[in-house]
Amino acid sequence: MMSDKAPDLIVHNSSLVVTMAGSAPRRGAEQGEIAAVADAAVAITGDRIAEVGPEKRVLDSADRHTRLIDVDGRMILPGYIDAHTHPVYGGDRTDEFIARLRGADYEDIHAAGGGIQATVRATRELSVSRLVEEARPRLARMMSNGVTTFEAKSGYGLDVPSELRQLQAIRELDQSGPWELVPTFMGAHTLPDEFKDDRAGYIELVVEKMLPQVEALDLADFCDVFCERGAFDVDESREILEAGKRHGLTPRVHADELSPSGGTKLGVEVGARSVDHLPFIDDESVELLADSDTTAILLPATTFFLMKDRYAPGRRLVDAGVIVAVASDHNPGSSHTLSLERALELAVMRCGLSVEEALAAVTINAAYALEHQGRLGSLEPGKQADLIITDVTRPEQLIYGWGVNHITGVIKRGKMINRRRHRLQHRQHKESRGFSHLFGD
Amino acid sequence: MMSDKAPDLIVHNSSLVVTMAGSAPRRGAEQGEIAAVADAAVAITGDRIAEVGPEKRVLDSADRHTRLIDVDGRMILPGYIDAHTHPVYGGDRTDEFIARLRGADYEDIHAAGGGIQATVRATRELSVSRLVEEARPRLARMMSNGVTTFEAKSGYGLDVPSELRQLQAIRELDQSGPWELVPTFMGAHTLPDEFKDDRAGYIELVVEKMLPQVEALDLADFCDVFCERGAFDVDESREILEAGKRHGLTPRVHADELSPSGGTKLGVEVGARSVDHLPFIDDESVELLADSDTTAILLPATTFFLMKDRYAPGRRLVDAGVIVAVASDHNPGSSHTLSLERALELAVMRCGLSVEEALAAVTINAAYALEHQGRLGSLEPGKQADLIITDVTRPEQLIYGWGVNHITGVIKRGKMINRRRHRLQHRQHKESRGFSHLFGD
Repeated sequence: MMSDKAPDLIVHNSSLVVTMAGSAPRRGAEQGEIAAVADAAVAITGDRIAEVGPEKRVLDSADRHTRLIDVDGRMILPGYIDAHTHPVYGGDRTDEFIARLRGADYEDIHAAGGGIQATVRATRELSVSRLVEEARPRLARMMSNGVTTFEAKSGYGLDVPSELRQLQAIRELDQSGPWELVPTFMGAHTLPDEFKDDRAGYIELVVEKMLPQVEALDLADFCDVFCERGAFDVDESREILEAGKRHGLTPRVHADELSPSGGTKLGVEVGARSVDHLPFIDDESVELLADSDTTAILLPATTFFLMKDRYAPGRRLVDAGVIVAVASDHNPGSSHTLSLERALELAVMRCGLSVEEALAAVTINAAYALEHQGRLGSLEPGKQADLIITDVTRPEQLIYGWGVNHITGVIKRGKMINRRRHRLQHRQHKESRGFSHLFGD
Repeated sequence: MMSDKAPDLIVHNSSLVVTMAGSAPRRGAEQGEIAAVADAAVAITGDRIAEVGPEKRVLDSADRHTRLIDVDGRMILPGYIDAHTHPVYGGDRTDEFIARLRGADYEDIHAAGGGIQATVRATRELSVSRLVEEARPRLARMMSNGVTTFEAKSGYGLDVPSELRQLQAIRELDQSGPWELVPTFMGAHTLPDEFKDDRAGYIELVVEKMLPQVEALDLADFCDVFCERGAFDVDESREILEAGKRHGLTPRVHADELSPSGGTKLGVEVGARSVDHLPFIDDESVELLADSDTTAILLPATTFFLMKDRYAPGRRLVDAGVIVAVASDHNPGSSHTLSLERALELAVMRCGLSVEEALAAVTINAAYALEHQGRLGSLEPGKQADLIITDVTRPEQLIYGWGVNHITGVIKRGKMINRRRHRLQHRQHKESRGFSHLFGD
């Protein structure tokens, strides 16, 4: 398992390293099998995991050049992967949020030309470098909450140059790090104002103009569609996703979010890598998903922020044998949080996943949803060294102690990105060291 | 407004200083009037506010000894006051939480001798100094999330020495700061195991043994009772609260949380300073409260964590003219979060308060609920200099950007307790300064 060379870095003195080693993806009863090593350390060589094993054995592989990071008993996890985000956009929608607090409905706002359209107007104003600049603090905040890899969608341009600028911004953000972004083209997010009386014309624009350029510039891995009343129906969505496939893009679908849209069935039919949202998924769609290799991505932070009560039926999906992931859906309208941890809590406390299932949903299964399960999502020799250090010692404490940021350190491609000092919240054996060093959360 | 002496500290360059100046408490339409000064600064002399006013005028009062803190455009608020917490206890109840996730009911766990009783067993094991040591990181984390003053209850001892130890720990925590604690005696949290067949015997212990010692040692300002099926009924609660009054303690009541317990009516009858929880409050109780000087303290983080759907009717209470506060209810069983910000979000997104009403609910009205509205809860000349620096520029953004810690600096009694560097999330005019300094949340 170990290379001849001593590791560059050893992260050690962890009460529990959750590895997620084993099946990729997890489904059914396996979704809750997180795989973990107690009293362990992680050895890293370059940007790769060299070994995960018992503290002493791993430390024995160090030489005098090996850097050591003592995590003081804390639990280590694979870096979180946020498999559904819209982080590149202009403007904000605080006023729309206030209107919703006063009773306005999200779909009505959308139909009246607000909502996504408002973000489209603000996004079209921005250059690639401004888009990058606006997105950077968002990604930084999300990374400080544990996310090391993001899926990132276009869909706030809705004309050829603006969609390309969004995808170019995503590429530039990926290349300038310290995070990693997986790009999705979503020209079919909604109909732009100028095409509101010409649905066929906009779909033609997406299919004939946008997709060829996205392929030519190699700007995306996936093609996503918002299959929903008020956006694109099943036939329109199919046309776009099939065209995307011809241009080398794997389908994803925003499905069954606000109504039973048929999006899940379409997703399975076209071989989508994921169908996302799902509060209104029907029984037949659950069965179809269970028999497919398509991931169900739950986005409970959206349900919470839209102040709805109907969450996606996570428990039922896992029990049926569906591959389940969880993501933040960060966007300026329907899910404006920068914390994947909140989505994780809601997946457990409102969608019925166990803590272990939810952790698989933001690591190995999220990696699978992005087609990177061979490189990301678990801590195994040879995989990329993306890992996070928590302030707890057991997985359950991440949710039991809900509402705060439990991530105290982030390592991406073998490099420590940030480190925050916190005394262990649930420590058993250590003496107090006062409290002044505890601040900074 | 200004003293002759130049201020010791000026916190300046704030786009908006929310002062909460004016009525204390706020009720009805006034609850949403937060009072604020744009492009402002706060001058502090010793532990007191000297002035809040326009940037230039306040800066003109500086001399060469005045320390300046530039908040880079961010909004400043009065320090949050968490008017209902149980932060001093032993053990944790992760396993009970897991059982609840699997379908166990909180009241059933309580009836079976788990729940509060489990914490009582663990708390009785601990000395005052161990209780202090266990509580400190909790308070530090809560303070880093904006809380500068805590109400803190006993109620996990339930025998004379253990209740006194809890209150002594609260006193020691208050004196060793940097926060401030307001102590509440809650011997009537539940019946301890050894009295489960002798309700009258336990009430006699509370009334005849505990209360006289609490008074003699001057260990509490308030006396609280859990008035609920499975705990104490209305007559028992009245007996204890009236006895508390004879010993100088103002009543508070855990009321109408899990059933219509009659606790609110009792609270108004005995002149309680607050009635807390309230998901099951009835119409008559709302009217009684509106005609009283008793505060309604909403604890929506508890409803969330108990995975219930019925939140306290905050909108209705404000509209009826009730004085409304919001608190975290931090405790190891029913509300194990260390973030008052999560309670604030739920007060807005689930209880129907406006953002401004919710901010009054954790500042001036929370100060009133603790009988400290003359000294705490607003930024006005002469009041204690407890203030927090956010990472946003408008109150709405605290909730629109839900799920993270928006507090970047805490000043308690005129002293900077901690400072976290974050670029403004919603800035309009500044150039990027890269992102490496953004981490640390």
